[in-house]
Amino acid sequence: MSTLIRTRVTIVGAGPAGLILSHLLAEEGIESVVIDQRSRAEIESTIRAGILEQCTVELLTRIDVNTRVHTVGQRHDGIELRFEGEGHRIDFQKLVGRSVWLYPQHEVLKDLLALRMDAGQDLRFGITAHRVEDADSLTPRVIATGADGHEVVIVSDFVVGADGSRSIIRPAVSGSAQSGYFRAYPFAWFGVLCDAPPSSDELIYSNSASGFALISQRSPEVQRMYFQCDPEIDAHSLSDEDIWATLQARVPGTTLKEGKIFQRDVLRFRSFVATELRRGRLALVGDAAHTVPPTGAKGMNLAVADVRLLSRALTALLLRDDDALIDSYAERALQRIWKAQHFSWWMTSMLHTGADADGFDRRRQLGELRSVVESEAGRAYLSEAYTGWPIED
Amino acid sequence: MSTLIRTRVTIVGAGPAGLILSHLLAEEGIESVVIDQRSRAEIESTIRAGILEQCTVELLTRIDVNTRVHTVGQRHDGIELRFEGEGHRIDFQKLVGRSVWLYPQHEVLKDLLALRMDAGQDLRFGITAHRVEDADSLTPRVIATGADGHEVVIVSDFVVGADGSRSIIRPAVSGSAQSGYFRAYPFAWFGVLCDAPPSSDELIYSNSASGFALISQRSPEVQRMYFQCDPEIDAHSLSDEDIWATLQARVPGTTLKEGKIFQRDVLRFRSFVATELRRGRLALVGDAAHTVPPTGAKGMNLAVADVRLLSRALTALLLRDDDALIDSYAERALQRIWKAQHFSWWMTSMLHTGADADGFDRRRQLGELRSVVESEAGRAYLSEAYTGWPIED
Repeated sequence: MSTLIRTRVTIVGAGPAGLILSHLLAEEGIESVVIDQRSRAEIESTIRAGILEQCTVELLTRIDVNTRVHTVGQRHDGIELRFEGEGHRIDFQKLVGRSVWLYPQHEVLKDLLALRMDAGQDLRFGITAHRVEDADSLTPRVIATGADGHEVVIVSDFVVGADGSRSIIRPAVSGSAQSGYFRAYPFAWFGVLCDAPPSSDELIYSNSASGFALISQRSPEVQRMYFQCDPEIDAHSLSDEDIWATLQARVPGTTLKEGKIFQRDVLRFRSFVATELRRGRLALVGDAAHTVPPTGAKGMNLAVADVRLLSRALTALLLRDDDALIDSYAERALQRIWKAQHFSWWMTSMLHTGADADGFDRRRQLGELRSVVESEAGRAYLSEAYTGWPIED
Repeated sequence: MSTLIRTRVTIVGAGPAGLILSHLLAEEGIESVVIDQRSRAEIESTIRAGILEQCTVELLTRIDVNTRVHTVGQRHDGIELRFEGEGHRIDFQKLVGRSVWLYPQHEVLKDLLALRMDAGQDLRFGITAHRVEDADSLTPRVIATGADGHEVVIVSDFVVGADGSRSIIRPAVSGSAQSGYFRAYPFAWFGVLCDAPPSSDELIYSNSASGFALISQRSPEVQRMYFQCDPEIDAHSLSDEDIWATLQARVPGTTLKEGKIFQRDVLRFRSFVATELRRGRLALVGDAAHTVPPTGAKGMNLAVADVRLLSRALTALLLRDDDALIDSYAERALQRIWKAQHFSWWMTSMLHTGADADGFDRRRQLGELRSVVESEAGRAYLSEAYTGWPIED
């Protein structure tokens, strides 16, 4: 038994990119079907951090009157860079008149799922996409399996891969799943969640001789913290005491508020950009197209920037048969993506201690940190990138 | 036969650092002896490039009414960064209200030698220093050989190593000649001088897929140009046609003015900072203390910044017996030195193509160049460093 679905745009993946795209298309009267292999509950409970750029928040605010980004999310007007035991505030508002919002990705997803469900979006959970057929035709077909094990075939005028870093759509666009530009990093983040109020109102990015640490927040009762670790570490090999000692040593000058650690995980770092972002009637957005290390806080924002460009390109293509914007989609998206890749790499290499770093590297790194914080232009350059470059829709 | 000289400060090396230091000390009434193993003619004919920061030029103008920096030197209000075939002007005057001067180092030296000779400075050429004795005493002794082969011993209250990257004084200060932080680069600059008017009024720093090139100027009739090459290359293995073809290919969009190539050389790159800059009554300045790759145009300027700090420290020590400034000399000098090391490394890595650079590196590099030129803050951050951070005397 096989179910055949016909729609204008097939969106594979109900993450922030796929859901926002379905909304932007609906605003233009373009019908889409969003599928995801996970259940709604799974999507809403996959806890991921989130720093939202100001223009991401402006978009969420515009499209969703019920967004909780302004109530549950926290506006941050700056961050602290710390090195050699001293903190240096980067005052985003003063430097560039912009802010970011700390609002975890799963909270964004709860808002967006409710928004799209209420609007009557055709949104199907538990549908696993396998491949694209007729990829070079004007009506590519996504072959999938439903939760009940039966085949689902979706025929549409355009297929969007918004299905994350293990994208099923990517091979059809970019040649193979691995085809792209890749960078591995010789360290990971050891992340913990604990029952304690924030140790700091704003994020602290701390460089120390023994490695990087990030002091973040989750809520008034829960703290989120990370420290640079060996990517091969077993998350359960450290005692709570080890974890607190490591964190505290890496943020000299601040006394961290301690509490029961109830979650620990190891986040590996990589940078990736797919070779091609578009082929005929297929395109990639978000993590399907690129991955950035978390230091630059760019992940979700870059996905949103992609779908803003793509929604306009699809509107021109599907409503006016104008292919200029879709033909330039990849090039325009890649301009921002490579700036964000650079920023993420820069923040990562400026703040972490490389495994093979020698005395020259270490002192040069401190020279760089000092150059940035001592210069208003340097602080503004960092702030512009962190709070997000303007979106050209 | 041995000649014994007694003075207050022994300055080994009659380069820009040593000569300017002798002037600044003389202004305070502190006598010094400057020795150099080269002859005056050799010093004046060793052709080296020179970009002078605004504060270096301000100092030269203050100390030397006859300086030719404003007549023979050329003021440059910006540079061009070129990549992907497009030029982007970095307008120093508009961004930070400052300029640099193109004035070759041997011209600076002619001015300074004339200045110090006229002032009656004890300045001895052809004296080769060998070692420091009684290094930990209050009257260290420099043991040298005169042009006639006889021993010269200079006893003084302070010895300054201003004797370049192969400093004889460095081992006595920093433990050994090699003791320091070091970075080699996998490329060099192939430099040419040719009979042709400038191809550009300002320096062009050009990044291209095949490597870096720098289009500079020497005079209205002579052009100075460089291109990134293998450090092992034989300078005479390339024909003039090869050189022009390589240069032209690396500056797409500009037609270079060609002329007879009358000098070619290969400049190796390295970064170095000595472990210690001061020990008791000994200190290092300029290339004796540090080496930077030429991309950041910091070499001579950093030497001048060192001697400004050191001259004040020696004045306090020798006239007022106050050792606070000399005790903090190394730490204060190193703040600027490591910022300059970072800037030189940054300009080098942003503009050159690494031998082992892959597709990720190349695209990230272009993302970085775009981030800098598209941002006023980015351009200002670069301009501040290029034109020189303020000197705190």
